[in-house]
Amino acid sequence: MHALLTDRYELAMLGAYLREGIAERRGVFELSVRRLPPHRRFLLVAGIDRAVRYLRDLRFSDEEIAYLRTAPGLADVMSDAMAHYLREFRFRGDVDVIPEGEVAFESEPLLRIDGTLAEGQLLETFLLGVINAETRVASKAARVVLAAQGRPVFEFGARRHDPAAAPYAGRAAYIAGCAATSCEEAGMRFGVPIAGTCAHSYVLSHVDDGEAAAFERFAEAFTSGTTLLIDTFDTREGALRAAAAGPNVRAVRLDSGDLDALGHDVRRILDAADRRDVQLIASDDLDEHRIGALLRAGAPYDGFGVGTAIALTPDAPSLGAIYKLVEIEDRRGVRVPVGKRSSGKPSFGGAKQVWRRRDAHGTLVEDVVGRADEAPPAGAEALLVPLMRMGKLVRDLPSAHEATLAARARASAALASLPPRLRALEDRLEEPYAVSFTDALRALASQT
Amino acid sequence: MHALLTDRYELAMLGAYLREGIAERRGVFELSVRRLPPHRRFLLVAGIDRAVRYLRDLRFSDEEIAYLRTAPGLADVMSDAMAHYLREFRFRGDVDVIPEGEVAFESEPLLRIDGTLAEGQLLETFLLGVINAETRVASKAARVVLAAQGRPVFEFGARRHDPAAAPYAGRAAYIAGCAATSCEEAGMRFGVPIAGTCAHSYVLSHVDDGEAAAFERFAEAFTSGTTLLIDTFDTREGALRAAAAGPNVRAVRLDSGDLDALGHDVRRILDAADRRDVQLIASDDLDEHRIGALLRAGAPYDGFGVGTAIALTPDAPSLGAIYKLVEIEDRRGVRVPVGKRSSGKPSFGGAKQVWRRRDAHGTLVEDVVGRADEAPPAGAEALLVPLMRMGKLVRDLPSAHEATLAARARASAALASLPPRLRALEDRLEEPYAVSFTDALRALASQT
Repeated sequence: MHALLTDRYELAMLGAYLREGIAERRGVFELSVRRLPPHRRFLLVAGIDRAVRYLRDLRFSDEEIAYLRTAPGLADVMSDAMAHYLREFRFRGDVDVIPEGEVAFESEPLLRIDGTLAEGQLLETFLLGVINAETRVASKAARVVLAAQGRPVFEFGARRHDPAAAPYAGRAAYIAGCAATSCEEAGMRFGVPIAGTCAHSYVLSHVDDGEAAAFERFAEAFTSGTTLLIDTFDTREGALRAAAAGPNVRAVRLDSGDLDALGHDVRRILDAADRRDVQLIASDDLDEHRIGALLRAGAPYDGFGVGTAIALTPDAPSLGAIYKLVEIEDRRGVRVPVGKRSSGKPSFGGAKQVWRRRDAHGTLVEDVVGRADEAPPAGAEALLVPLMRMGKLVRDLPSAHEATLAARARASAALASLPPRLRALEDRLEEPYAVSFTDALRALASQT
Repeated sequence: MHALLTDRYELAMLGAYLREGIAERRGVFELSVRRLPPHRRFLLVAGIDRAVRYLRDLRFSDEEIAYLRTAPGLADVMSDAMAHYLREFRFRGDVDVIPEGEVAFESEPLLRIDGTLAEGQLLETFLLGVINAETRVASKAARVVLAAQGRPVFEFGARRHDPAAAPYAGRAAYIAGCAATSCEEAGMRFGVPIAGTCAHSYVLSHVDDGEAAAFERFAEAFTSGTTLLIDTFDTREGALRAAAAGPNVRAVRLDSGDLDALGHDVRRILDAADRRDVQLIASDDLDEHRIGALLRAGAPYDGFGVGTAIALTPDAPSLGAIYKLVEIEDRRGVRVPVGKRSSGKPSFGGAKQVWRRRDAHGTLVEDVVGRADEAPPAGAEALLVPLMRMGKLVRDLPSAHEATLAARARASAALASLPPRLRALEDRLEEPYAVSFTDALRALASQT
């Protein structure tokens, strides 16, 4: 638990709130994505499990408090009272969330905190970071999985970004439907299936006996089956050698060149060698568009390894989720909706709920964002569900493994319930998903 | 230390190497960036300090080994011998690096490992992740700092990406010349200066008494001086209220709207209120281009807060560094240069060194990549320097704070030594920096 994974200004404001005597006033903070990034038609929510464990476990250590006491710029407010506050800190508020694996859209609170002004403020940076990072990855991975049309997608991006973030990205990709991740830590911590083949270095290290011997040795080692990387020297020759490397070879991976043409050639070579059982895996900077193009061209791949596109989402590198104070008690204890008013970035005040309508087949029709305390629209389901009340979990937290599996199951159902136009991958979307606002919410907004 | 922050295939290959009896053969692995990303004219090396601490400290825990013993797909090779290897693992190889804070270019090894095949393989994922992430951030931050022309740049991106990565990004930004980061953990762990102002939520929480009172209370709290965010309601009114909030107000921050026009207006308002001492800070999705445009337009800003652009580098989300086996012992113990030969991604085999030529003023003229064992070109300095020999540090590691400061000092000198065209920020570069290859290296390549 790193309580200092937070921005300085949260601590500065906390210090001011304590000094002013308003730290314990109740407020509501909401985390949402203001606009969907280009090239996204929906969000797939991820990061909630990590957020809730943070809310449950957040403590400030003596070492952290000692550091803050002498931190330049914070000393003015880092009084004994603030040190005491941090030492005794336990989150005691209410939390509602859209569960992990659900699909969501812009302007919808993914997470809502109803707690003291102090605690809501203090939590901002970490909650934003987690939801921004994991929902970003899951939302992209879902597109890649859709593009693969049922073929397995392996998330191989650990090497492309900060190692500390890699297990979480692997987990988010798995929730979105990837078959496995390469990052071993995600297996131990979250129970995500782990996959890996071999690298060019493996083949190159066999300087004495060459690629054929490398393939034979690798296949011998993996009696339960393995995948060989066949493009170190010549992909077609590699395919021939892989075909001859014995029955443990279950798949070959192609990582360079014209993947369409090579895929057909390698398939023919394997088939001619009576190895119809050997599957073809493509990698090499793939994303949903390249996978879609390969499949439309009839390239005979059975699975895809995807790194950068899922881990770093280059077409939408930032999700841009925001975290806003939307309601605060005044001095009489009356809750007042609040919102920023200046140019360009208006926002609705007031605690909100999201309701979803479906058609008779369960397919999503529209979402309605309204006041948390108004009557739900007829026949609509509430997306934000209670997670914590007065700092206590509403129900026991499942293990990290179970939570991951549950989120994946939810994602599978959620993606299946998307209207077909939202599952499509083209850049242009004629008719975005309908998200509307209730009259009661609009009326509230006009007061803020 | 998370030994499982590695890809499955490293462990799979390790298992095969052990089984084949070639795990202890010496090999050389090099980490480099094949091509500079678009919109980058140089790399600023970062991540080395974390890499070396990983190399020094990497151990596999009993818990990790127990997990690997039953991990599906790895069981075939996860023998007692492999468990023993992992339990006893200590890195015992040689490491040469281009130091943190140095500028580097494409095709140049930033890090070179000369060790056993097993250890070089095992280290790949983590080393790639660290250098990819931190060098990516530092290389972008350096451009933003150059654009600010001496004005301080504050890195505020912690909320935009995985919290676990935030302190490292803050450190990389500081190395590149940013004045501070917002991420408190980077202060405690690396001694990076921490900065923060206040959020819209602070102003909004003052529902009883409004913005003027919020400003007064915040300024009163920070007797050493503070920065107020003035765009919650109306930026010009906010400027007037900030001017009246007392002498502790040292700066105001504008986070929305037409920053050019508002900057001029706010400056006039502050000056008219006899607050020429109050500085102006701009934020709101800034990058080097927007900062450059503001300054060219004469917008009177004294500093800039930058989040997404530095933390997530949307113009080059992936650095794409690679890690390649370039040399391996054959069965007779003779070192053989190796390299991938298939289409599209050729690479030079053989252990390499990078030499740099400067002019009489110290300005960079060209880099030459050659064989590590050839005579250096006359008058050129070697960029790769020894860091570890036989697993031992060549010299005592400085503290994390000292290492960060040293890297920042090196970066400052390195950026000052760039030819002006490489410091420019336009998209198009007529004459890239010259990186050439020695004849000896080319001769070696033709053998691989």
